[in-house]
Amino acid sequence: MQSDLFEADHETYRGVVSEFVTRSVEPHLDRWNEQREIDRETWLEAGRQGLLGLAVPEQYGGPGETDYRYRAVLQFEIARAGASALQSGFSTNDDIVLNYLLRHANDEQRTRWLPGFVTGATIGAIAMTEPGAGSDLRGIQTKATRADGGWRITGSKTFITSGILADLVIVFARTDESFSLFVVPDGAPGFTRGRKLDKVGLVAQDTAELFFDNVFVPDADVLGEIGAGLSYLKQSLPLERLGIAIAGQASAEAVLDWTISYVKERTAFGQRLADFQKPAHDLAHLRTAVEVSRAYVDRCIRLHNTGDLTPVDAAKAKAWATQLQHDVIDTGVQLHGGYGYMLEYPVARAFVDARVQRIYGGANEIMMEIVAKDLLR
Amino acid sequence: MQSDLFEADHETYRGVVSEFVTRSVEPHLDRWNEQREIDRETWLEAGRQGLLGLAVPEQYGGPGETDYRYRAVLQFEIARAGASALQSGFSTNDDIVLNYLLRHANDEQRTRWLPGFVTGATIGAIAMTEPGAGSDLRGIQTKATRADGGWRITGSKTFITSGILADLVIVFARTDESFSLFVVPDGAPGFTRGRKLDKVGLVAQDTAELFFDNVFVPDADVLGEIGAGLSYLKQSLPLERLGIAIAGQASAEAVLDWTISYVKERTAFGQRLADFQKPAHDLAHLRTAVEVSRAYVDRCIRLHNTGDLTPVDAAKAKAWATQLQHDVIDTGVQLHGGYGYMLEYPVARAFVDARVQRIYGGANEIMMEIVAKDLLR
Amino acid sequence: MQSDLFEADHETYRGVVSEFVTRSVEPHLDRWNEQREIDRETWLEAGRQGLLGLAVPEQYGGPGETDYRYRAVLQFEIARAGASALQSGFSTNDDIVLNYLLRHANDEQRTRWLPGFVTGATIGAIAMTEPGAGSDLRGIQTKATRADGGWRITGSKTFITSGILADLVIVFARTDESFSLFVVPDGAPGFTRGRKLDKVGLVAQDTAELFFDNVFVPDADVLGEIGAGLSYLKQSLPLERLGIAIAGQASAEAVLDWTISYVKERTAFGQRLADFQKPAHDLAHLRTAVEVSRAYVDRCIRLHNTGDLTPVDAAKAKAWATQLQHDVIDTGVQLHGGYGYMLEYPVARAFVDARVQRIYGGANEIMMEIVAKDLLR
Amino acid sequence: MQSDLFEADHETYRGVVSEFVTRSVEPHLDRWNEQREIDRETWLEAGRQGLLGLAVPEQYGGPGETDYRYRAVLQFEIARAGASALQSGFSTNDDIVLNYLLRHANDEQRTRWLPGFVTGATIGAIAMTEPGAGSDLRGIQTKATRADGGWRITGSKTFITSGILADLVIVFARTDESFSLFVVPDGAPGFTRGRKLDKVGLVAQDTAELFFDNVFVPDADVLGEIGAGLSYLKQSLPLERLGIAIAGQASAEAVLDWTISYVKERTAFGQRLADFQKPAHDLAHLRTAVEVSRAYVDRCIRLHNTGDLTPVDAAKAKAWATQLQHDVIDTGVQLHGGYGYMLEYPVARAFVDARVQRIYGGANEIMMEIVAKDLLR
Repeated sequence: MQSDLFEADHETYRGVVSEFVTRSVEPHLDRWNEQREIDRETWLEAGRQGLLGLAVPEQYGGPGETDYRYRAVLQFEIARAGASALQSGFSTNDDIVLNYLLRHANDEQRTRWLPGFVTGATIGAIAMTEPGAGSDLRGIQTKATRADGGWRITGSKTFITSGILADLVIVFARTDESFSLFVVPDGAPGFTRGRKLDKVGLVAQDTAELFFDNVFVPDADVLGEIGAGLSYLKQSLPLERLGIAIAGQASAEAVLDWTISYVKERTAFGQRLADFQKPAHDLAHLRTAVEVSRAYVDRCIRLHNTGDLTPVDAAKAKAWATQLQHDVIDTGVQLHGGYGYMLEYPVARAFVDARVQRIYGGANEIMMEIVAKDLLR
Repeated sequence: MQSDLFEADHETYRGVVSEFVTRSVEPHLDRWNEQREIDRETWLEAGRQGLLGLAVPEQYGGPGETDYRYRAVLQFEIARAGASALQSGFSTNDDIVLNYLLRHANDEQRTRWLPGFVTGATIGAIAMTEPGAGSDLRGIQTKATRADGGWRITGSKTFITSGILADLVIVFARTDESFSLFVVPDGAPGFTRGRKLDKVGLVAQDTAELFFDNVFVPDADVLGEIGAGLSYLKQSLPLERLGIAIAGQASAEAVLDWTISYVKERTAFGQRLADFQKPAHDLAHLRTAVEVSRAYVDRCIRLHNTGDLTPVDAAKAKAWATQLQHDVIDTGVQLHGGYGYMLEYPVARAFVDARVQRIYGGANEIMMEIVAKDLLR
Repeated sequence: MQSDLFEADHETYRGVVSEFVTRSVEPHLDRWNEQREIDRETWLEAGRQGLLGLAVPEQYGGPGETDYRYRAVLQFEIARAGASALQSGFSTNDDIVLNYLLRHANDEQRTRWLPGFVTGATIGAIAMTEPGAGSDLRGIQTKATRADGGWRITGSKTFITSGILADLVIVFARTDESFSLFVVPDGAPGFTRGRKLDKVGLVAQDTAELFFDNVFVPDADVLGEIGAGLSYLKQSLPLERLGIAIAGQASAEAVLDWTISYVKERTAFGQRLADFQKPAHDLAHLRTAVEVSRAYVDRCIRLHNTGDLTPVDAAKAKAWATQLQHDVIDTGVQLHGGYGYMLEYPVARAFVDARVQRIYGGANEIMMEIVAKDLLR
Repeated sequence: MQSDLFEADHETYRGVVSEFVTRSVEPHLDRWNEQREIDRETWLEAGRQGLLGLAVPEQYGGPGETDYRYRAVLQFEIARAGASALQSGFSTNDDIVLNYLLRHANDEQRTRWLPGFVTGATIGAIAMTEPGAGSDLRGIQTKATRADGGWRITGSKTFITSGILADLVIVFARTDESFSLFVVPDGAPGFTRGRKLDKVGLVAQDTAELFFDNVFVPDADVLGEIGAGLSYLKQSLPLERLGIAIAGQASAEAVLDWTISYVKERTAFGQRLADFQKPAHDLAHLRTAVEVSRAYVDRCIRLHNTGDLTPVDAAKAKAWATQLQHDVIDTGVQLHGGYGYMLEYPVARAFVDARVQRIYGGANEIMMEIVAKDLLR
């Protein structure tokens, strides 16, 4: 069953995205993995092609396109190329960092910060997780204390996507009993970056530890109200999780396509792998699962467009689609046989890249906790 | 997430259905199970309330309502009462038998046969399966041979829903190398019914064996073209399978609701069952699964309304929703503890009723075969 | 892989059991299901054949056979006949009720009570579960209060296996803050039985509610020490759970055999079902699972024989083998197609009988709670 | 439940192994991963400690220890250190290459080849798989043609464990309609090695492509009878698969232990992760699964010791234990949260290392095919 999510304008946009992927992504994937970093030029090119900061209003240099389906087109096309690290970086920028700024930055801040999200000149990061506090944000120890004309932040963060390249970091810190958000630019005295973390996958994504040693943040760089951090977080989570869900769905669809192509071509024991009933039924089941999940993800995207996607429904989508992604990839690897274990095959790369999807953005167990609380209170 | 399938008119209709269920179904469920048969009066009352034969055109006494969502409303409401046997009977009448008649009966036949499907006076059955031929219809042995002014049918059928009460049976029989459909009324000489089969569940549903011993069918009672049986079958399968999918989805939703209510009330070790994390997460997962599946089923219903539901997509929906139904009920029974094994509890009844859903209408393995063939050819 | 559990003597004993099953069980199964009760004569015949009360010492009329493998032989052979209700009744007598008596009855009580467990004249029951207290035994409300020369018991019990036929009931009751065990014989004033419960399966097993209205229990019928009930329970649980595990394992092996025979004979689409790769792999997987589980169950039986089976390991066996039983039966039913839903087929009967195995003897969730506490404390 | 496989002598041996692992393995793991190769010195040290070539008879310099339990001790201890690549290399040498030589080499060949398997001076490889022929060995294209005093081999192999370091390669090649085995030493003219393959995991294991361009193999280096290759293969498969099964079991046990330690220490939301019911039950289930599987693997080891392990049972063990390994690791990673995605954590390394276990040695689907054929013929 075909999704009915996209309309003619989205398909036109898909053409632009597709050309970007063919010209500016696919030829560089191996190099990005080797250098463990995506080129800054790729961001700028994406900006030039109009693929970044879609939601930025026109007065700040953006197209002001709030139909999230355009973002979804980008996600699906990047997934087809297996460029998970790029997807993760773009998503962090557009679905998370930019989303905070659009919701809570004042006009002066918007003028300063938003244009770079459209051009690709600004790579953003969000610094929440700490070594001792993952899904349990109340355990965060990074502290902001009042100083003359601003705040001083001390603490350390870990698992920060785009941590090495980030030009601008939103830091989630404790302000007495509450939490607040502070924007720290590259180069701020006392702000240093740890090593690039050695991850299972997403190796081209520069995940890092960040250290804040008495970093001064002027009042002008406080994001929103002091003390409102947790409430801002809750407002932003649905989009973050929808973004991860779409990435999971898109990856599942892509890997399933690769696998179907493979079993149609590969022969063993004198016939196509596709002609053996067991793998055929496994793929039939997964194809069904992918379509079923897509119907839900599409519904979530439409709800997001009308402002009606709840945190609970976004949690469901995140947990479901990332589990689907795992299931498809696990079978995909298996059906590729030994090639499924070789990183030159996209399915192998998808395998290592995907494992974090069930963990970050709130582990899937946390998603179920959220759903359970809503269901059983 | 709420389904967005139904509109105001459907909700109004739901009120009518709901009253029918409360007044004419729920008080009789236990008795139906004991007598292993549903009252004919229930069919007539359903007819009086406008719940049967919705798709029958006005000229034949029906409302001519082709929006399948009204049928879906009925399915969901009957499922909430746990009246699976009634659901199965109504579905056989409206989604299968009537569907064949609407597609292939000529005007004279429509005039004779259709009104009873609206009033509830006619209970129909479809006789396909044979002892030696289940999902593999080409193995059917029942034979029709040309006779003066008609055909003579000989053979036996099994697992026929409404087999005991049926007033009108569509018989699928071999005509030389091809297959054709014949309508045999109650009382036709040579047509006898075997014993009511002793099933795991759906005990109020009169499933039976049917025997045809040289039964004469006049040309006027041949349905459609001789030799077109297999092609008619293929046209009718999507709706049959959609009907089963909706029944599965509706049952899953109902059982999940019952179980959630139960764990909120039942206490053990000093707290509500709902407050234990393991069952809470199990239910959260199932709630997610139910909503995800619903998005797909809704999409199928809409496609059916526009005539675009393919046999392949209907096969997916059938397999998926009935598996979901199984998963929800299995957990539902388990969380009810010992009560889940007592037939006076609806969840126990749902457990025995549901098991056939993955088997009839084409076993789910056949569904996957259909999907696989489409996917991998 | 063959199990290496049994030796020559056990195989000889299997011959005796097998003849009993062929002559005294199989011809009566349908009738037992109809009358919803097993004949008392069956118990007496089993006694005559030396199949009951194996562990009863010679001085009390038994063979004093403490090698549990003989009991296991009986379980496996009864399972091959699909006589789950009989198995459940025998197990309650030998693995539970007799086990309590052997452990805690004094010599005078043994003289009175044990012989009947060897002859089959005594059917025992254990009354623990209450409407408001299932797995959480501390919630039990049935109360024993001190009376002249004994105790008076008031309360109600439910889901009691052999509840209708039982000649002797061990009642678990609250004595102030602690719990104690009392033996109540059939006919004791104030002891009444409720209706035979209408269960999903095991319909030949007379499960019932029991009511105790100020029933007098003389001191001579107190089992063991007053106040020691919970500790006695803990000592008895491993054997009860091992018994359920063996029943699960035995049923899984039997149903797998039936299913393999079926798919080897049944044809569809021109070949044996066994020649389709999907069902073949499903059965291969289940065959593997059955053998793997058997290795564990065998190990548990050996540990029980040497007195080394811990409650934690018994909990693991119970949960594992009953889940295996479910998995095998679910596939077994499915591969039988429509026949899997007809109660005349043993696989259908196994389906309805098995569902309680994951619930009684402590729901499998409780088993996992026990394992978790041991593992993570 | 503790395994009862090992006796006092095996525990003494465990001490030797354990010291080797602590002193000669753990300090080097990171370096091996970086250099993508294990030090030759490690093999020599293992040889000095008596850990290699146990089955080599005394006359060829070995201890002639045919009790496979000593090999199992090594497997379990190496798994506890997470040194999968070393395990894979040792297993290839001892369970596969040496096994072929012990079975089929003549006395002169044994004198030449066996000593190095005891000292660790000889690293062996087996060259079966080809780009176009994985599990389907009959598809192999590498060809040996008769030449003066020997054979000439031409073809290419892939996914060869120890392919870069191997001193001695057993090549499986087509000799007309049949297959034969040839031993090719390092340095043989025409024998070249391709690049070290870039794998998902086992990065310290030098897996490679091998090329044979008209390589001359003198008759003295033919292994066994010409034309007997397939039959030799069948004889050798049980041990190869048992070795993989043990590796899977050992890894599952180790990862479960690491995870249990982690959840006992890590806190979130004010309590230990171990105190949340959902992860606790997940771990309880996995602990049960690990013990159940161990009972089976132990039984297989004992059967191997007596020469009674069939290819079918070895296939079951391989498929079961490697699936278990996957299941444990998947949950292990998940419960480690973000750390589970960081390669410095052993659980992350185990995740990437384990994925090939379900693929090599015959994909698990092939194992099920073997079991199915045995079961359903």
